[in-house]
Amino acid sequence: MATYRIVPPIVHHDLVRRAYLHRGYTSEEAEDGARFCELAATYGIHTHNAIKALHLDHLFGSAVGGCKPGAEIRVVDKPFAASEAWDAQLKLGQSVAFRAMDKCMTLADKYGIGQVSVDNAFHYLWGGGYVMEAAKKGYIAYTNCTSTLAEVVPFGGKFPVLGTNPHSWGLPTTEACGFPIVIDWATSTVAMGRVQQLRREKKPLPQNAAVDSEGLPTIDPEKAQWLLPFGAHKGSGLSVLIEVLGALIGGSLPTLRGGGGHPLFTGKELPAGEKRTSSFYFQVIHPEAISSGLFAQGRKQHENVRQVLQDILGHGNESCMLPGQPEAENAKHTEKAGGLLFSEAEVEALNELAAECGAPALESTYKTYTT
Amino acid sequence: MATYRIVPPIVHHDLVRRAYLHRGYTSEEAEDGARFCELAATYGIHTHNAIKALHLDHLFGSAVGGCKPGAEIRVVDKPFAASEAWDAQLKLGQSVAFRAMDKCMTLADKYGIGQVSVDNAFHYLWGGGYVMEAAKKGYIAYTNCTSTLAEVVPFGGKFPVLGTNPHSWGLPTTEACGFPIVIDWATSTVAMGRVQQLRREKKPLPQNAAVDSEGLPTIDPEKAQWLLPFGAHKGSGLSVLIEVLGALIGGSLPTLRGGGGHPLFTGKELPAGEKRTSSFYFQVIHPEAISSGLFAQGRKQHENVRQVLQDILGHGNESCMLPGQPEAENAKHTEKAGGLLFSEAEVEALNELAAECGAPALESTYKTYTT
Repeated sequence: MATYRIVPPIVHHDLVRRAYLHRGYTSEEAEDGARFCELAATYGIHTHNAIKALHLDHLFGSAVGGCKPGAEIRVVDKPFAASEAWDAQLKLGQSVAFRAMDKCMTLADKYGIGQVSVDNAFHYLWGGGYVMEAAKKGYIAYTNCTSTLAEVVPFGGKFPVLGTNPHSWGLPTTEACGFPIVIDWATSTVAMGRVQQLRREKKPLPQNAAVDSEGLPTIDPEKAQWLLPFGAHKGSGLSVLIEVLGALIGGSLPTLRGGGGHPLFTGKELPAGEKRTSSFYFQVIHPEAISSGLFAQGRKQHENVRQVLQDILGHGNESCMLPGQPEAENAKHTEKAGGLLFSEAEVEALNELAAECGAPALESTYKTYTT
Repeated sequence: MATYRIVPPIVHHDLVRRAYLHRGYTSEEAEDGARFCELAATYGIHTHNAIKALHLDHLFGSAVGGCKPGAEIRVVDKPFAASEAWDAQLKLGQSVAFRAMDKCMTLADKYGIGQVSVDNAFHYLWGGGYVMEAAKKGYIAYTNCTSTLAEVVPFGGKFPVLGTNPHSWGLPTTEACGFPIVIDWATSTVAMGRVQQLRREKKPLPQNAAVDSEGLPTIDPEKAQWLLPFGAHKGSGLSVLIEVLGALIGGSLPTLRGGGGHPLFTGKELPAGEKRTSSFYFQVIHPEAISSGLFAQGRKQHENVRQVLQDILGHGNESCMLPGQPEAENAKHTEKAGGLLFSEAEVEALNELAAECGAPALESTYKTYTT
């Protein structure tokens, strides 16, 4: 149970839009930034809402040249009809991601599948949001990205060289179960933010989540220095997969990535000719393109998916949650409340952003909502 | 350290080919079957070599109508240029998978990406083999399939409703590190075969690998009844992903899948109009299609991948194994031995197959090789 303030979407949208404009972004980018933050808030993604978006922009983005307001996406000329490769030239990640997913859907309509790879990218925040939007439109969608900082130790290693590299899949299951299944997580067991939270709360970490400065596993949050992949070699492989895809797209060494936050390069200049940017990969599949049409009992495709999901959630598994279900339940709360839900601390942080850009502060009279 | 008999590839090929012919397969299917088993043996995949292939065929395949020798693949008519959907009509899984991967490569050459989905499929054994072959030819390759039996309990559940549903990715890294990176595993923590092995050896299971008949986690191999996904909700999501893809392609209820081995349906007839088949999904990406060409220090694409892999394996991580490295090391042993490596027990099992089809027994004079 938690209590939140109900913030009107229009007020939130205006605040976020003005915050981006104040940082020098174009009105189109500011709209994309506001749209994304509303999406995150609607689905209860408190780790990647407006506060995180504008904080990241301050730490690694427009304030330090990691993200370039007004940058234009350059499409690299290629002879492959169902693919595009883009040089994002450090454009706002959310703007790039929305456009890439739109392009993938257009390609999938024609070719059954489409992909967009993106070089010189800046943080797109929550991959699950982009695949969820495509899944709600009826597509199978996928994205991954190399994370800004290499803070994960590979399976069997000692030193952080992998990003928390997230994978996100969205599946068109709204007709089948009421919401799109969204499988969306970092390849580390936990995020660094979780380690910091447990350190503040003086609580132990989960097993196999972190290592100390010697590279030895620890559950002591004071000793925890770097993260471990989830699922031993399996999760580690899923992280390496993204590093290699990033390298094929155009990304350089993982330990160079980001704004110089890695211990190997703290305070050092980027070597000449080197790159610190992330890479994105997007893919959309048209569900009709993979359908044989030969469904049991003469079912339609979405009826077949519904039956399969009911089988999975039957036989004693009734209390299982499908991936994406927590987000769907958060969205129901948002709808019921009639506005976006923010904690008191979040309202304060949003008001700091409002003060920065000259937007009106959120009113202290907004009603509360308890989940 | 282990000691093996060195079996000449030509002798192995002839034995496996004749075993498939004896079961009624066409000469083309028998060649595909032999090619696949040689691939598995070359890379040391003892769990999916000729013995397993022909044992599975006996249990679930040609002997019981789960696989139909001489079946023709039917291409379902679709208006999507970079995609094909196939009705395999229960054709030998290896033949279907080799052809599907070839088709994906042809599509990727033209469109940058290509996919083939397969309905009414029968077990293709080792997905890693197909993606490895494509990766050795320079492509990014992926496959998944719904496994025959639903023996995995979803995260938070009690009852087995998911296959061990494997994912396999192959990456074109031969120029960068000497072998293709192959990320290939089931979404269960361990396979059921491993549980049976530990039961025989009276050794405990790993944590979070299995549950008892009440659905409670256990490390006692005597009590272990069903498997758990790896990595809690993350691995469980990766398994659900394959179930939903299978449902979109044409597969029916997971608990109906396979030859009636699931506890819900043991000894029961398949309900009228129902399906028990697996589904396959294949995808190939042309690496040139995703390249921005903007590599740091003026590197070429494969040089960039090499530098990234060296960064990952540096800084104290020198003893890490990349995914696919164990298979590559097995292939070196095969090359050094000048033949395929089988244990004494495997030679005996191969000789049983030889006796079944009238092929000459393997000679007891074959030299040994110790790894």
